[in-house]
Amino acid sequence: MFAEIKGLNEECGVFAVWGHKDAAQITYYGLHSLQHRGQEGAGIVVSDGDTLNVHKGLGLVNEVFDQQSLNALQGSAAIGHVRYATAGGGGFANVQPLMFRAQAGGLAIAHNGNIVNANNLKLQLENQGSIFQSTSDTEVLAHLIKRSGYWSLEDQFRHALAMLKGAYAFAVMNEHQLIAAMDPNGLRPLAIGRIGDAYVVASETCAFDIIGATYERDVKPGEMVIIDDNGLRSEQYDKSPNPAICSMEYVYFARPDSNVETINVHTARKQLGKQLAIESPIEADVVTGVPDSSISAAIGYAEQTGIPYELGLIKNRYVGRTFIQPSQELREQGVKMKLSAVRGVVEGKRVVMIDDSIVRGTTSRRIVNMLKEAGALEVHVRISSPPIKHPCFYGIDTSTTSELIASQHSVEEMREMMGADSLAFLSTDGLKKGIGRDPELNNCGQCLACFTGEYPTEIYADTVHPHAKV
Amino acid sequence: MFAEIKGLNEECGVFAVWGHKDAAQITYYGLHSLQHRGQEGAGIVVSDGDTLNVHKGLGLVNEVFDQQSLNALQGSAAIGHVRYATAGGGGFANVQPLMFRAQAGGLAIAHNGNIVNANNLKLQLENQGSIFQSTSDTEVLAHLIKRSGYWSLEDQFRHALAMLKGAYAFAVMNEHQLIAAMDPNGLRPLAIGRIGDAYVVASETCAFDIIGATYERDVKPGEMVIIDDNGLRSEQYDKSPNPAICSMEYVYFARPDSNVETINVHTARKQLGKQLAIESPIEADVVTGVPDSSISAAIGYAEQTGIPYELGLIKNRYVGRTFIQPSQELREQGVKMKLSAVRGVVEGKRVVMIDDSIVRGTTSRRIVNMLKEAGALEVHVRISSPPIKHPCFYGIDTSTTSELIASQHSVEEMREMMGADSLAFLSTDGLKKGIGRDPELNNCGQCLACFTGEYPTEIYADTVHPHAKV
Amino acid sequence: MFAEIKGLNEECGVFAVWGHKDAAQITYYGLHSLQHRGQEGAGIVVSDGDTLNVHKGLGLVNEVFDQQSLNALQGSAAIGHVRYATAGGGGFANVQPLMFRAQAGGLAIAHNGNIVNANNLKLQLENQGSIFQSTSDTEVLAHLIKRSGYWSLEDQFRHALAMLKGAYAFAVMNEHQLIAAMDPNGLRPLAIGRIGDAYVVASETCAFDIIGATYERDVKPGEMVIIDDNGLRSEQYDKSPNPAICSMEYVYFARPDSNVETINVHTARKQLGKQLAIESPIEADVVTGVPDSSISAAIGYAEQTGIPYELGLIKNRYVGRTFIQPSQELREQGVKMKLSAVRGVVEGKRVVMIDDSIVRGTTSRRIVNMLKEAGALEVHVRISSPPIKHPCFYGIDTSTTSELIASQHSVEEMREMMGADSLAFLSTDGLKKGIGRDPELNNCGQCLACFTGEYPTEIYADTVHPHAKV
Amino acid sequence: MFAEIKGLNEECGVFAVWGHKDAAQITYYGLHSLQHRGQEGAGIVVSDGDTLNVHKGLGLVNEVFDQQSLNALQGSAAIGHVRYATAGGGGFANVQPLMFRAQAGGLAIAHNGNIVNANNLKLQLENQGSIFQSTSDTEVLAHLIKRSGYWSLEDQFRHALAMLKGAYAFAVMNEHQLIAAMDPNGLRPLAIGRIGDAYVVASETCAFDIIGATYERDVKPGEMVIIDDNGLRSEQYDKSPNPAICSMEYVYFARPDSNVETINVHTARKQLGKQLAIESPIEADVVTGVPDSSISAAIGYAEQTGIPYELGLIKNRYVGRTFIQPSQELREQGVKMKLSAVRGVVEGKRVVMIDDSIVRGTTSRRIVNMLKEAGALEVHVRISSPPIKHPCFYGIDTSTTSELIASQHSVEEMREMMGADSLAFLSTDGLKKGIGRDPELNNCGQCLACFTGEYPTEIYADTVHPHAKV
Repeated sequence: MFAEIKGLNEECGVFAVWGHKDAAQITYYGLHSLQHRGQEGAGIVVSDGDTLNVHKGLGLVNEVFDQQSLNALQGSAAIGHVRYATAGGGGFANVQPLMFRAQAGGLAIAHNGNIVNANNLKLQLENQGSIFQSTSDTEVLAHLIKRSGYWSLEDQFRHALAMLKGAYAFAVMNEHQLIAAMDPNGLRPLAIGRIGDAYVVASETCAFDIIGATYERDVKPGEMVIIDDNGLRSEQYDKSPNPAICSMEYVYFARPDSNVETINVHTARKQLGKQLAIESPIEADVVTGVPDSSISAAIGYAEQTGIPYELGLIKNRYVGRTFIQPSQELREQGVKMKLSAVRGVVEGKRVVMIDDSIVRGTTSRRIVNMLKEAGALEVHVRISSPPIKHPCFYGIDTSTTSELIASQHSVEEMREMMGADSLAFLSTDGLKKGIGRDPELNNCGQCLACFTGEYPTEIYADTVHPHAKV
Repeated sequence: MFAEIKGLNEECGVFAVWGHKDAAQITYYGLHSLQHRGQEGAGIVVSDGDTLNVHKGLGLVNEVFDQQSLNALQGSAAIGHVRYATAGGGGFANVQPLMFRAQAGGLAIAHNGNIVNANNLKLQLENQGSIFQSTSDTEVLAHLIKRSGYWSLEDQFRHALAMLKGAYAFAVMNEHQLIAAMDPNGLRPLAIGRIGDAYVVASETCAFDIIGATYERDVKPGEMVIIDDNGLRSEQYDKSPNPAICSMEYVYFARPDSNVETINVHTARKQLGKQLAIESPIEADVVTGVPDSSISAAIGYAEQTGIPYELGLIKNRYVGRTFIQPSQELREQGVKMKLSAVRGVVEGKRVVMIDDSIVRGTTSRRIVNMLKEAGALEVHVRISSPPIKHPCFYGIDTSTTSELIASQHSVEEMREMMGADSLAFLSTDGLKKGIGRDPELNNCGQCLACFTGEYPTEIYADTVHPHAKV
Repeated sequence: MFAEIKGLNEECGVFAVWGHKDAAQITYYGLHSLQHRGQEGAGIVVSDGDTLNVHKGLGLVNEVFDQQSLNALQGSAAIGHVRYATAGGGGFANVQPLMFRAQAGGLAIAHNGNIVNANNLKLQLENQGSIFQSTSDTEVLAHLIKRSGYWSLEDQFRHALAMLKGAYAFAVMNEHQLIAAMDPNGLRPLAIGRIGDAYVVASETCAFDIIGATYERDVKPGEMVIIDDNGLRSEQYDKSPNPAICSMEYVYFARPDSNVETINVHTARKQLGKQLAIESPIEADVVTGVPDSSISAAIGYAEQTGIPYELGLIKNRYVGRTFIQPSQELREQGVKMKLSAVRGVVEGKRVVMIDDSIVRGTTSRRIVNMLKEAGALEVHVRISSPPIKHPCFYGIDTSTTSELIASQHSVEEMREMMGADSLAFLSTDGLKKGIGRDPELNNCGQCLACFTGEYPTEIYADTVHPHAKV
Repeated sequence: MFAEIKGLNEECGVFAVWGHKDAAQITYYGLHSLQHRGQEGAGIVVSDGDTLNVHKGLGLVNEVFDQQSLNALQGSAAIGHVRYATAGGGGFANVQPLMFRAQAGGLAIAHNGNIVNANNLKLQLENQGSIFQSTSDTEVLAHLIKRSGYWSLEDQFRHALAMLKGAYAFAVMNEHQLIAAMDPNGLRPLAIGRIGDAYVVASETCAFDIIGATYERDVKPGEMVIIDDNGLRSEQYDKSPNPAICSMEYVYFARPDSNVETINVHTARKQLGKQLAIESPIEADVVTGVPDSSISAAIGYAEQTGIPYELGLIKNRYVGRTFIQPSQELREQGVKMKLSAVRGVVEGKRVVMIDDSIVRGTTSRRIVNMLKEAGALEVHVRISSPPIKHPCFYGIDTSTTSELIASQHSVEEMREMMGADSLAFLSTDGLKKGIGRDPELNNCGQCLACFTGEYPTEIYADTVHPHAKV
């Protein structure tokens, strides 16, 4: 996955289904299509109306589940989760859905996002006698629900949500209900679909396509959607929502075949590429993109400029954990990892290399170098998003500020560091225009915090990156 | 394992070490030697003085751990656990050690036994806002510790123990201390040893032998042993202990090379066989034992009677999960599982077949049948323990009363059901005499509840078998 | 891999290295980059100058090899092989390299292609007392070498080659030499490269790029290249070569980043797309390609026509063997395998769908259907190669004639069967022009047999498809 | 397995069945019960009357086969093989059954033993153009069969057998017949049984017991048994057989529940122990045996002397390949591998330790040392076979003469080296008497070559140990 190359990692993918006799199977395929959102762990909780059952584990969806474990998950409702690969992380204890058992019944939670006041809440809860088994911010929600004093999941959940700050797209299930909820800024995507009479909920619409479900609508900022055997009800639990969806979902994270809030991601990326061509044209022989996430932008750039689009870079599909890494010595001799330049395409050419974003800049330097070694006469780097200068507190594992190259260096310095012949980024206006959301909204309804430092929520002194150790 | 044959399953094995630089490795070998006490799951938590780290999983010790996962567990203190195979069970969430994280530090718990008032305590705790992630009674202890109001683990633990009823041998660890504790009846074994300057704690002494540790003493009923960098301190937290160790540890569970409270298990079993020969002699040609747990008793019976001991039954060492079970059809044609009779030994002979205990009686019937098919003229069944008539609430997964054949049928009825030519059980007096513990103590310091129905602790209306579903 | 979708399967990939201290590692990475040429099995034989050692197995390269098995392969010369997935096939016995041991030394053979007189030769050899352990045509070569009567591998090999008819790219190694050889038509690709002082040989140049080797030249039709510690010697063992490289290597098989006989495959495919646009233009809104092999042609078609190229189809990256297939019922409900249409891109649009070839036509029908279900107004299918009407006897596992849809139906019939609004194939002239090889040569030096039925070699009555059972 | 401890390794186990609809399943269980005869590899070839199909691999029976691979082996006849673990060995190529394919049909061979003139025959065959794919002597038989000039398997096989010297128990199968054959000395065991109407053949009778088959008789020295749909026919192809079965089958290799030529192995071992007690009594407190192979002899020794038999040594059931070996440092601190002494049994006692044989003497030294460290006052070593002074050429992988401690040292020297208080071996007369075969035959029909150096067959200058590299 490209995540390995860039060091820009999404938190998670969430999926849920209510009212389908093959709930676990459906969830398995749904999670598989969300695999790009998290490769560390996967899990499914099913409800058969009486009890909840769980299977989860570290690894990819098809490593965690086999026919036997899937068959054991009988029931017509399910929630599932894929979790992204942390360096060390909490291991198994953090794999979701989290499941809790009480005499009165069970509770399962799947979460995408990051709760910025989690530490604060944890301290309060510990003082009241709560104990925690994971380092995850998600466990906080369970305690808040439990301690709410209300009787129904719906009331408990509403009460708990009121105490949370930050980014969250939740799917929560007990034996009787499935509830999906979105933070007041709608920072993470979450869509609702139908498959026959059943309801499905997913972080991205590509999960609907793979199972043959139809898209209905997105969960709205500050909305809580309650699904049970009586159908679907909506409640706007936050009365003053302020839409600010993560721009990087369009730029980098989501699959090109997903629609995020009705905008197709491939199309948005192609528009970003066109916008980039308008802002920063260059004379060159070929346009190439860094696979996989920058292909659409590269095609857009080529289309706008009329320079041919070519496969100048190819990704080596190293398959997972078991692949034997080359020794340092072999790597120095030129044994490639992950990406190769295609000599037959770039040799003797002036190359425009499109990338979607730059985090630490090390990958870009390596790619420019590869292209030159493969015979490129010039390499012009064009980035289809603005410089990332500020950390994300909403579920993306960007490095700290000091590691973000764009927060420490000017564009010209970066160009020199990566050995490119020219370097240009898309402007934030270009970004808004390219994605094409509602211009009436603040920032067109996008979160631009990592580019501008303007965070749509409060940030606390003890707000932590999601994967810092407690 | 023979457990599969009999339906008489132990809960768990506990191991801990403090002050050894290879703590995780040592624990790995210790747990391996305790593998007979539990095959469902295994885990190790290590402390490096700063933080706790855990690795656990479903399966055998050498399935759960590989070199990499073991290497990742750096630290000089560790607790480990093996858990027995339930039919469905709570799966991963119940695999121990349980680990809890708080802002103030971590806590890990490994437990062997069964807390008879767990349900009661759970309800109280839930009412106070606690949430549970497993169906295990062990999680109760963590909540009691957290809510105790005390500052030191020692005080918290003492407070929590005071609320527990039942059988428990605990090893509990935080970053600063390791505490081992035993219930006031000492129902489950737990021994202390030394390896160099380090302390080790284990459910059975065979774990000391495999790592080259020396046995020091057993943890006493009602005792709490606190181990930290200042050494070992003991505290008698229960002032009126009433020793009543589980008789079945001697009869069936413990490894023959272990000493349980200074008595060697093989030697005890051989004495039970001799005692049985004195009480119920018979004229016969060969003595044979059901492998592996009845071999020692059979040798004792042979030695006492002068009838030659022979290998009349052999165990097929089917290796684990991956073995392909014969179809029903092949089984009916005679394809054997687990045990075969040795025709070359029993043909034309009058056979005494020694077994250590009878639960449902189905295995005994099958073995008698096999011996007769292999040409035995007569089969005399001798059981080296009294009839099991009452369920165990202290961590042994015996069937319910109605499934215990001896609670429903007379000895003569049982003999007829299993097709034996004669059948005799050891008396409870013979059992006490054979094991040879202190005659001054009540029942020689043994728990005889499964034979007599006299339970050494209160039993509650809602006391559950350890593996009943919540 | 797309192979699963189409039913058009390549035989194999060959790799060899001589004179590199990490010969096995280098071969591992080389084979990995050739994985698209064969997924059934993989193997490596190394020579340390004294003896040959082998490791091989069924599965992907990174399933067959782990660090341990790779470390065990010490030596400075190696040949490797990946083999394609047959339905039933000979299993392990057919996994290459084949290795033979004699008192005088060993012999290892890796082969890509198909020997059309293999059955004939086998019968002769059996009559002389030879025995065969595989169903592979490759084993024939070993017997011919052994029985040649010559002393040196070089002489033995030359003698053996003279008896073979068909398509073959061989790498053969003993303790002293590595020999690469090509059939007189040069039907399969085989290239020579350098990495430091070492020589490498590979089916495709992408294997050179991944290891940092430089391309030198291709092995010529009828050439034998002998590599040993004295360097590389060439011998033209066939004096009247007739170049006719497989056209489908350019159209479908080879990786886009490979150069096949100095022509970059991506570039050739893009030209095929442009040529197709010139021959069969259409008015439409978007161009899309069937991933992965038709992407380049689709980009070419878009570039030529000015219609935007979009990601209208997306491949689901199901990972290998362990993926749980959806039940028939779920499939009928719309759970997708392998490919999905991107509604966000095709809805309400007139779509040109580019595919590289049609074998049975079932996949095309399914894709057209998917696009229409996703809202495409019109679907115009354009194929970047001529209709395949004749079976291949040179190592491609096309179905028999009766299964080739184009041999049974007119273009209009096919269009109707697949439900397309229009359908057009590239002409053979367009194919030759698009690839752009030497126009002086017969058919520009291409084999067009599967389109025209004109086979460049004799075909025997008993010539078999490579995977028919003996 | 104890094999790992001693360095005295058996070659193989052979199993075959003809006329049973679940032939592969039956063979799977049969091979499982023969697993002690070989752990390196396993394989099964089935015939459905038309073709042969094979599945084999490196590893234990239940590692090589899963439900799927077993289900794929349809047919009513099968031969199977387990192969012992060589240090390096030929790997997969040597795993049996070997299978050969010809236009006229297939041939499968399973072999236990060692052909002492194999090298000689190989040279001749290579001169005639044969090529070899393995280092195994078994491949020679296939070539001899192929080149015999006869038409029927029966004639071909008879012709081939006439050229072989050494030890061999063969099962050979084509689509029409199963043939079992024994060398003229009957050096390796091979028995015939019935299961319903089907015939079974196995290296040991324990394989019959596990599948519910009944023993019929043993294959006789110089006999060839032909089984097909017409039943079983016997032919004495060697007219002057000279029975000399391997003594070590009784002493060490065979399972105690097997009968080898009608004598039960456990019973024979017990008699050897009694004989040893008669020849070399000693005053002591306990008798203990080295598990598993010396238990029966120890019981016999105890019974004869009246000294109690106890479990003084216990085997640690380390499970296979995946077990993590202790570091050298931990081993020096006392972490045990494979065997531990039981302190509770031996402390303060005079111990008689029974072992079945001594090869290099290192294990014995280690065990004596362990017993003393566990508190034994005296350790008296008694060996239930004579000193092994000569290498075996018949399929047992004893070390070379120089590594056999008894060929280099006197009994007193050995006693001192191992630190025992006394040491005695059984006499060859005691060995013959203890096993109890026909006293009329030369050496009672036993091969005593490893004790006496008198080999029952010719030995050639180039006779190799079975696992020497070609």
